[in-house]
Amino acid sequence: MKFTKMHGLGNDFVVVAEFSSVPEEISLLAQKVCDRHFGIGADGLVLVMPNAGEADFTMRIFNADGTEAEQCGNAVRCVAKYVFDKGLTDKTEVLLETRIGVQKLQLFVEAGQVSQVTVDMGEPTLSGTKIPTTVDKEQVVNHPVAVPGGEFPFTAVSMGNPHAVIFVEDLQGIELHQTGPQIETHPLFPRKTNVEFVQVHKPDDVTMHVWERGCGETLACGSGACAVVVAGVLTGNTARKTTVHLKGGDLHIEWREADNRVYMTGPSVIVFEGSY
Amino acid sequence: MKFTKMHGLGNDFVVVAEFSSVPEEISLLAQKVCDRHFGIGADGLVLVMPNAGEADFTMRIFNADGTEAEQCGNAVRCVAKYVFDKGLTDKTEVLLETRIGVQKLQLFVEAGQVSQVTVDMGEPTLSGTKIPTTVDKEQVVNHPVAVPGGEFPFTAVSMGNPHAVIFVEDLQGIELHQTGPQIETHPLFPRKTNVEFVQVHKPDDVTMHVWERGCGETLACGSGACAVVVAGVLTGNTARKTTVHLKGGDLHIEWREADNRVYMTGPSVIVFEGSY
Repeated sequence: MKFTKMHGLGNDFVVVAEFSSVPEEISLLAQKVCDRHFGIGADGLVLVMPNAGEADFTMRIFNADGTEAEQCGNAVRCVAKYVFDKGLTDKTEVLLETRIGVQKLQLFVEAGQVSQVTVDMGEPTLSGTKIPTTVDKEQVVNHPVAVPGGEFPFTAVSMGNPHAVIFVEDLQGIELHQTGPQIETHPLFPRKTNVEFVQVHKPDDVTMHVWERGCGETLACGSGACAVVVAGVLTGNTARKTTVHLKGGDLHIEWREADNRVYMTGPSVIVFEGSY
Repeated sequence: MKFTKMHGLGNDFVVVAEFSSVPEEISLLAQKVCDRHFGIGADGLVLVMPNAGEADFTMRIFNADGTEAEQCGNAVRCVAKYVFDKGLTDKTEVLLETRIGVQKLQLFVEAGQVSQVTVDMGEPTLSGTKIPTTVDKEQVVNHPVAVPGGEFPFTAVSMGNPHAVIFVEDLQGIELHQTGPQIETHPLFPRKTNVEFVQVHKPDDVTMHVWERGCGETLACGSGACAVVVAGVLTGNTARKTTVHLKGGDLHIEWREADNRVYMTGPSVIVFEGSY
């Protein structure tokens, strides 16, 4: 099986375009391929397939545990680079069908190769009970959450998954591995929550550390970066167009006033080609 | 750069044969290549090079942190398979120069490919102070070590690195992540120690769980499996030829009476070919 190893901000994938439909043994294949000692090693196995409908390609993504993921902004950027750099398309606007629908991707090309990709991440949900939190308000902005690690004002945003965004003076003072899980599992969040701690350098330039629900600290969380900018606008901490520095690299986020949608722009990288 | 990804019991390596000598930037290259999210991902980068002297090949191994390793039984087995399967030699006895000298490897071939490799791991050191432990005896057999997790009888063996081998009735009852580091850092071991817990199924068939000094739990530790059989013979628990089951797979260990040396036989596997 020919594959291409790629990553988006360190979130890494084995990308395979050899299948025309999802093979029966996909769950086992994903587990074997993603194993970092006995297999190729990756966060996920991504299949790029032909699309029978209006989209240009179909993408499906399977986690290292064999389950199927709904969507992943980092993987979508990798697929955009893959189909262009490999000559499967010459379009710079690509329609990609994923499990949550058809996504429109904007490709930025430098010297014949995709350097950055913009992904439409949709409209944020702000209603407290829909996110969900136990706070029954139109918006949950700078609401206090008290945990053993301290009391923090959080702003709640859903980008399809719940986020609690906390702006702090100094990220160095935050014990993420201690405070992250305390907030993740706080009763304010009936389905738990992702937790983002954010330090603002300038209104359009912030650094975020993320504690992902069910995962722990990760290098990059695309929906988290989007939630940070939405929360930044709601609290007056950031502009609508802001660069977010994550451990794995930078994302450029825009929460557009015109259509209320959040657009995420970031890089994807081909690491190596392989034969398994 | 062309490479082959291999593993020996899950201890995994990027094997490269493109260099005739160690490149200047090897430390940085090893760090980049071994990174599991941004690079190829491996425990180590292994260079296979021509040998100017009596040996067939030279091997050098660099850890994921960029430092050079002295030796590694799992990597040596991978190199043996690499040079034969790739047609660089047709010998089934290969002399490999490593940093600790020239090692003689015995290759077992099935259908034109190496399936198992025997590595001469040298003579064990049994003298208490040479291992080192603080017990000044010719042999340290079933000596008690008391830690918060309990009191255990350990047998001390050095295979170039110190091991404390503990035979137990039932491995399931051992909290390795708790007890392992307690014994590793006990004052009885002035340079700390690797810790092996062993359950004997039959005198020639045992299962071991290993806590590696400075590393924690690992899938496989070749020198640990050797120490287990030496300790097994000294305590009457095992035969001189014994199969050791590790989390990553099986090793066949023989402590030969004729020459007092320990021979380790085990598999190595090619996972995929790549271009970086």
